[in-house]
Amino acid sequence: MAKELKELTSRATNYSQWYQDLVIKADLAESSAVRGCMVIKPYGYAIWEKMQRVLDDMFKAEGVQNAYFPLFIPKSFLSKEADHVEGFAKECAVVTHYRLKNNPDGTGVIVDPEARLEEELIVRPTSETIIWSTYKNWIQSYRDLPLLCNQWANVVRWEMRTRLFLRTAEFLWQEGHTAHATEEEALKMTRTMIDVYGTFAEKYMAMPVIKGCKSANERFAGALDTYTIEALMQDGKALQSGTSHFLGQNFAKAFDVQFTSKEGKAEYVWATSWGVSTRLMGALIMTHSDDNGLVLPPRLAPIQVVIVPIYKNMEMLQAIDEKVAPVVEELKKRGISVRYDNSDNKKPGWKFAEYELKGIPVRLALGGRDLENGTVEVMRRDTLEKETRSFDGIADYVETLLGDIQQNIFQKALDYRATHTITVDSYEEFKEKIEDGGFILAHWDGTPETEELIKQETKATIRCIPFEGDTTPGQCMVTGKPSARRVLFARSY
Amino acid sequence: MAKELKELTSRATNYSQWYQDLVIKADLAESSAVRGCMVIKPYGYAIWEKMQRVLDDMFKAEGVQNAYFPLFIPKSFLSKEADHVEGFAKECAVVTHYRLKNNPDGTGVIVDPEARLEEELIVRPTSETIIWSTYKNWIQSYRDLPLLCNQWANVVRWEMRTRLFLRTAEFLWQEGHTAHATEEEALKMTRTMIDVYGTFAEKYMAMPVIKGCKSANERFAGALDTYTIEALMQDGKALQSGTSHFLGQNFAKAFDVQFTSKEGKAEYVWATSWGVSTRLMGALIMTHSDDNGLVLPPRLAPIQVVIVPIYKNMEMLQAIDEKVAPVVEELKKRGISVRYDNSDNKKPGWKFAEYELKGIPVRLALGGRDLENGTVEVMRRDTLEKETRSFDGIADYVETLLGDIQQNIFQKALDYRATHTITVDSYEEFKEKIEDGGFILAHWDGTPETEELIKQETKATIRCIPFEGDTTPGQCMVTGKPSARRVLFARSY
Repeated sequence: MAKELKELTSRATNYSQWYQDLVIKADLAESSAVRGCMVIKPYGYAIWEKMQRVLDDMFKAEGVQNAYFPLFIPKSFLSKEADHVEGFAKECAVVTHYRLKNNPDGTGVIVDPEARLEEELIVRPTSETIIWSTYKNWIQSYRDLPLLCNQWANVVRWEMRTRLFLRTAEFLWQEGHTAHATEEEALKMTRTMIDVYGTFAEKYMAMPVIKGCKSANERFAGALDTYTIEALMQDGKALQSGTSHFLGQNFAKAFDVQFTSKEGKAEYVWATSWGVSTRLMGALIMTHSDDNGLVLPPRLAPIQVVIVPIYKNMEMLQAIDEKVAPVVEELKKRGISVRYDNSDNKKPGWKFAEYELKGIPVRLALGGRDLENGTVEVMRRDTLEKETRSFDGIADYVETLLGDIQQNIFQKALDYRATHTITVDSYEEFKEKIEDGGFILAHWDGTPETEELIKQETKATIRCIPFEGDTTPGQCMVTGKPSARRVLFARSY
Repeated sequence: MAKELKELTSRATNYSQWYQDLVIKADLAESSAVRGCMVIKPYGYAIWEKMQRVLDDMFKAEGVQNAYFPLFIPKSFLSKEADHVEGFAKECAVVTHYRLKNNPDGTGVIVDPEARLEEELIVRPTSETIIWSTYKNWIQSYRDLPLLCNQWANVVRWEMRTRLFLRTAEFLWQEGHTAHATEEEALKMTRTMIDVYGTFAEKYMAMPVIKGCKSANERFAGALDTYTIEALMQDGKALQSGTSHFLGQNFAKAFDVQFTSKEGKAEYVWATSWGVSTRLMGALIMTHSDDNGLVLPPRLAPIQVVIVPIYKNMEMLQAIDEKVAPVVEELKKRGISVRYDNSDNKKPGWKFAEYELKGIPVRLALGGRDLENGTVEVMRRDTLEKETRSFDGIADYVETLLGDIQQNIFQKALDYRATHTITVDSYEEFKEKIEDGGFILAHWDGTPETEELIKQETKATIRCIPFEGDTTPGQCMVTGKPSARRVLFARSY
C-alpha cells in the first residue's frame, strides 16, 4: 500500500479536500468500482467495530435484542405508508431479475429476460416496512410488548452526490425498531435512545452534541417526531449524527398491527425507530483531526499506544526489545491496545509520520540515550507535545495520559463549538453571520414556510429545536411573529 | 408471540418437519414476505452472535483483519473468471434501476423506466471479483503481502428451493480473502482456515467434523482446490459446514493483480477464500436437538442456566428470590449467563417446557421443600436427567456440569457418527447401504465420470477425500480401476 505521506491538503486551504485526502491516506476507506459505494479498509473498519461494540452493549443495557430482517423489500410495501414512500422511492436500488445468462455473442453475461420477478424488490433504504410486516405476526397481546429489536445491516440509498462515509449509496448502520403498548412508553423510548446516542457521542467519540427535535420539514419520512444529535464540524458546518423517531401508530396502521390490551380491547401498536451509521466515522474524523492527520479519541482508537525503537545496530535494538517487552505486557494487562513497531524495513521518521497520520493517541520512542538514562520520549497526538520522562512507571503515566487526551479533545471540541455558536436577532445579521459558519440561535415563527424561505436564501436549515438551553419566547427574525424559543440554525452536511 | 408448546413433530415421524417445526417454535427464524429470505429472530440471532464472536477472535489470532466491500458487483466483473461466472450467474439478484416513481393511476409506485443503470449490478453471491478488483490497488510489492481480510456480510443466491438456515436466498456469512506471494503460503493459509473451522465446530459447536478435499466436481467455482468440514446430521445426511478455497492465481490473473517480488520480478498474487454462514445454525440444531426441542452446547447457548422458582404464595417467592440472588451473582461473576425467571404470568410447567424447547443447558428449580431442606433440583437438558442436590456449592456444580454437557453432547455426536460410518467394497453393497444414511468410505477411481454416475444412481456425493484416516490404496467399487484411497460418500443437505 504505497503512499506518499505528508501530502495532506491543509484544512485552511481546502477543508473538503483535506477530508477526502485524510480518509484515503489514513487507510480508512476508498471509492469502489461501483458508483457511490465505498470500501471500508481494515483500519477504518477497526474503528467502526469499536463503535459497534460500545453501542451494542449500550443497546443491550436498554433491553434491546438484535435480530436480522431481509435485505429486500417488496415494492408494494413501500407504498403502504404515504410519507415513507414519498421520502424513499426516488433513491431505491431495484431488483427486477434473478438470473444472468451467457450472451449469445460469447462476450460474457446478460440479464436473462425470462427471469423477471413478478414483483420488483427494493434493496432496503431503511427497514420499517419489512419489519412491521413481520411484527404483525409477533404481536398479539400486551404481553408481547414492548418488543425491542435492533439490526446491524447495510442499506442502500441511491444518492447522486456521494462522499466517503458522509453520504454513500451503500452504508452500514444499525436500525432499532421498537413496538409499545402506549404512546407515552414509545415517546420515552424515543428519548432514551437519543440520550444513548448523545452519551456515546460525548463519552466515546469525544464529540459534543446538541440534542433536540427536528422541525416538521426535517423529520424522517413517516415519523411524527424526530429527535437528533447535532455536532459541529471544524469548518463550521453541522453534522446530524444520529436520529430517533417517534412513529406514532403510522406503521402499525399501514401493516395492521394490533394487540389486545389488558382491558381486552384491540389497539394499534406504537412505534419508534432509531439509527446511527458509518456517517459517524465522518463526524469523528472531522471533529478532531488536524493537518498532520487523524486525531482519535483513545476510547475508539484501534491502537492506543505505539512504541518505536530508535537504534543504530542490532545489539541496541535487542536491548530496547528487552526493555520494552514488560511494558507492552503491562499495558495489555490493563486493556490498553499497544503496538511495538520494531520492523526494520521502515525508518523511525517514516513510522512517526505514519502513526501521526493514523492518529495513534500516544507514541513512545526509545533510543540509545534513553537506555543509558532510563528515559523514554512520550508524544501525545492531540497536542503533538513531546516530553522525555523516566521509563519507570511509564504504564501508569500512559494510562492517565490516555484519559487526559480523551478529556482534552472533548474540551477542545466543546470550546470550538462555544466560540462558534452565536445568538442573532435580526435576519440581516443572520444572513451575514451564517457565512462565517457555526451554530446560530435565532427566533423562528414555527412555520415550514419561513423555514423554507431561510433555507432558500441562506442554505441554512433548522438543525433542531434544542431540548435544553434558553427557552425565552421572542419574535421570529424573519416575520416578526411570535416564537416559542430560539432554535438552532446552521449549514450542514 | 403465542405458541403452542409440545407440538413438535418427532424426528422419527418426519425429520424434515421436525427441523422446520423446531426452528419456528424455538423462535430461531421464520420465513419472510420475500421469497426465500428469512427473518432471524432474536433468540436465533443471539446464537449466531456467539458464533461470530468466537470465530472473529479466532480469525484475528491468525492475523486476519476485518474490512467491508460493496454489496453490488458490476455484471461484467462476474465474467472475468470463467468458472466463477458459470457457477454463479444462474442465481443472481440483478439490480437494473435506481428509482421508483408514482404510478400515474395513483396506486402506489412503479419502477421509473428512465432510471435504468448503464451497467446492471449483481447483488454479491460471494465477493471474490469485487475484492480482487480492489486488491489490485492495494498490492504493488511483496511488502504488501500477505494481505488477510475478512468481511461479515449478507450475500444473495437466488435458490429455487429454500429451507430456513440451510438454504436461503439471502444469508449471513463471513468471507475471508487472502493474498500471498507464494503458492506454498496460500496453500498453508487454505489449510489453516479449514483447521480453524474444524476447531470451532468441535470445540464450540460440539459437532465432530471430517476434514478433507473436495473432488473436482464439488469444488468452488474458480478454485483449484476446496477444503471442507463435513458433519453428519441425525438423519444420516451429511452437511458441508465450512469451506476454504485455494484459488491459485485465477483471480489475480482475471483482475491483473501483480506484485514486485524481492527479486524485482513482476508476479501474479496467490489467493485463498474461506467462509462459514448461518447454515451453521442448521448444523447446530440438527446435530444435537431432540424431540423435546433444542439442545445447545453450553459454549454457544445465549442463556446457559435458567432458575425457576416454584411457589405457593408471595412470601415463598420472596424467600426464593433472596436465596437465589447471590447464586445469580456468583454465576455471572464466573462468566456464566443466567436467567432467573420469577415472572408470575406463566406457570412453572409452562416455563419448564419453554426452556426445554429453547435448549437451555441447565435448569435449576426451587420450591418450598427445597427451602426447608436446603436443596435444589437440577436438570441437564442433554440427558433430561434430574437430581436434587444441596444448594450449597451449587455454582461450582453448575460450572462443572456445563463443561460435562459440552463434552457429553460432543461424545454423543461422535458415537452417532462412529455407528453410522461404514466401509463398503462393492457398488451393490453401496447402493443398498446408502439407503440407511450415514457416511460410507469406499474406493473411487478418481474420475468425475464415475463420481457423476454414482450421484445419478444413488444421490450420494463424495463429501471429501479425508486428510486423515485409512490411506490404503484399492480398487474403485464401480469400475475396478485403481483407487488411491477410500473417500467419504454420503447423501447430503
